[in-house]
Amino acid sequence: MSTTLNPDTLPAMPDLHDAALAARLQALLDNKTKPQGSLGALETLALRLGLILGTEAPLLREPQLVVFAADHGLAAHGVSAYPSDVTWQMVENFLAGGAAVSVLARQHGLALTVVDCGVRHSFGHRTGLIDAKVAWGSADALQGPAMTEAQCAQALANGAALVQRLPGNALLLGEMGIGNTSAASLLMSRLTGLDIADCVGAGTGLDAAGVQRKIEVLRAVLQRHSGAQTPLQALAALGGLEIATMVGAVLQAGAERRVIVVDGFITTAAVLVAAKLRPHVLQRCVFAHRGAERGHALLLAHLQAEPLLALGLRLGEGSGAALAWPLLVSACAIVREMASFDDAGVARRSATAPVTG
Amino acid sequence: MSTTLNPDTLPAMPDLHDAALAARLQALLDNKTKPQGSLGALETLALRLGLILGTEAPLLREPQLVVFAADHGLAAHGVSAYPSDVTWQMVENFLAGGAAVSVLARQHGLALTVVDCGVRHSFGHRTGLIDAKVAWGSADALQGPAMTEAQCAQALANGAALVQRLPGNALLLGEMGIGNTSAASLLMSRLTGLDIADCVGAGTGLDAAGVQRKIEVLRAVLQRHSGAQTPLQALAALGGLEIATMVGAVLQAGAERRVIVVDGFITTAAVLVAAKLRPHVLQRCVFAHRGAERGHALLLAHLQAEPLLALGLRLGEGSGAALAWPLLVSACAIVREMASFDDAGVARRSATAPVTG
Repeated sequence: MSTTLNPDTLPAMPDLHDAALAARLQALLDNKTKPQGSLGALETLALRLGLILGTEAPLLREPQLVVFAADHGLAAHGVSAYPSDVTWQMVENFLAGGAAVSVLARQHGLALTVVDCGVRHSFGHRTGLIDAKVAWGSADALQGPAMTEAQCAQALANGAALVQRLPGNALLLGEMGIGNTSAASLLMSRLTGLDIADCVGAGTGLDAAGVQRKIEVLRAVLQRHSGAQTPLQALAALGGLEIATMVGAVLQAGAERRVIVVDGFITTAAVLVAAKLRPHVLQRCVFAHRGAERGHALLLAHLQAEPLLALGLRLGEGSGAALAWPLLVSACAIVREMASFDDAGVARRSATAPVTG
Repeated sequence: MSTTLNPDTLPAMPDLHDAALAARLQALLDNKTKPQGSLGALETLALRLGLILGTEAPLLREPQLVVFAADHGLAAHGVSAYPSDVTWQMVENFLAGGAAVSVLARQHGLALTVVDCGVRHSFGHRTGLIDAKVAWGSADALQGPAMTEAQCAQALANGAALVQRLPGNALLLGEMGIGNTSAASLLMSRLTGLDIADCVGAGTGLDAAGVQRKIEVLRAVLQRHSGAQTPLQALAALGGLEIATMVGAVLQAGAERRVIVVDGFITTAAVLVAAKLRPHVLQRCVFAHRGAERGHALLLAHLQAEPLLALGLRLGEGSGAALAWPLLVSACAIVREMASFDDAGVARRSATAPVTG
């Protein structure tokens, strides 16, 4: 595995543009027994899924919801309303089946895998848990880089390797890590150029004073790492081990033309990093929802993403990706299973609307 | 069955307000392993479903998607982009399993029933089709009332009777009827007081000139029936046979404390009529989506409804209700299956956020 940060070692990401396939998919949709475009965003989604999977009969197989977990050195600075121990406790909750994402994954038949990318806890060998621990949490980014270059390269490689071992053609992104909205805000500010105040929110529940303190801490972190300007430098200096592992997973999944279902603010920040490295990865992404975290809407706009849901979620874990999942299944089913006007013997719209009588 | 229009004969609709149950449900949600409120609208939905079903362990059983179908006398005036024959052709498509709602109902395990409330076609006895035909289409509302009082009373009674025969505790509303956006716009204007121009849209695909013509026709209809001011008078004069049958079904379902899942503009108009008759019926309703039809957003606002989805749908059939259905299942599962902080041994948020170091 790579131990230096060289973007050239990352997977290639060809342009999925295929005008002929897009035209065939659009014609299929337009000939279904419904007014043209009347299924709105579901039709846009169907077109995208057909293009990702390279087929006029898109079918999602063995979807994998992966929760990337790690602890954050910055958590010591009061940037979260919860103590760091909640990270490993929630990993246990995922494994026991009691978390929101556990419940939703069961409902939708999503295989749920938790990846220990850098949790400050020893889990031992556990069913449903992949050990990809790079370190016992990231370092305090106020003091030095969150990760060394070698650690970051290792996390990227881990993410790619774990996707290679997963079956199916869809990857749903989830995460758990007390303090990781801070890492996401830092990456967003550095890679979009937006002021850190526009990238920070209440996370899991800070009050106004807490948010202000968080902004001050993060502004100092950005100053400390003013030289970390490339996507990979920023990822190592400002990111987190679960985010770096996720970036590796996203790039590998994109290279394999898997459908990538993006969850909330943190997973969107990981996709931002991936997109700065390989812009065409966005062609493989479906954005599940716009969350309640301040900054998420701005980040989605930066990526020109149009999320499917807007339910005011601010949980993470992949909960929004799981909630949106049935819409992806529906979009594929519409293409594959709906009758055409000719099949069903249904009249098309009048060439000219009849005259008012 | 009743043959006169007397609101006193409609089912009683008690207030579901139960402060003790609401408090117990809220406490359950607040003790789940997630930051309080972090599941956003899904938590609001869970609370509502618990209150409708009267339990701290809500479970949706044998959901019934019912598509109410009828033809409209007004269709002769060019208020739709499609010919009236499409109504019966689409009923055949529902029965054959090829329509959007057929596909979505299969995906989600929703029992699909089509009700012939007044289609201009003879179907004979067919599996999945209920014959509740009151007339071969409604009359031309520009000439006289769309229904006689006896027809309207019959349709209301039919709707109540068919719900009584359906199993389960959830009713998803769907409809099919070329011209029925006109009937919905007329009812909306009359019962909300909004000008008809604010209640009219493109329906299944009129162009700007077509919309303008539609507004003129509908304004004339409203003038013709200026005396039809009560909800039942308006329903008979301006509505449609599928809408009247749906109003009867909604009131019966509400009285039985079934969860009512409202689809697009036409089903929302039926709920508007029901709510003007029995305001507490709204407590039993979940609004699936805000559609692309102009007027739907205004109508939802009038009902103080907060729909779950906004996907730009304008198909009807119950397609939006079906697409939102998994969110209702998720909301119940969250309440029933998620671990509490105590169950899972997860630390609660810090009483006071730690001091920035």
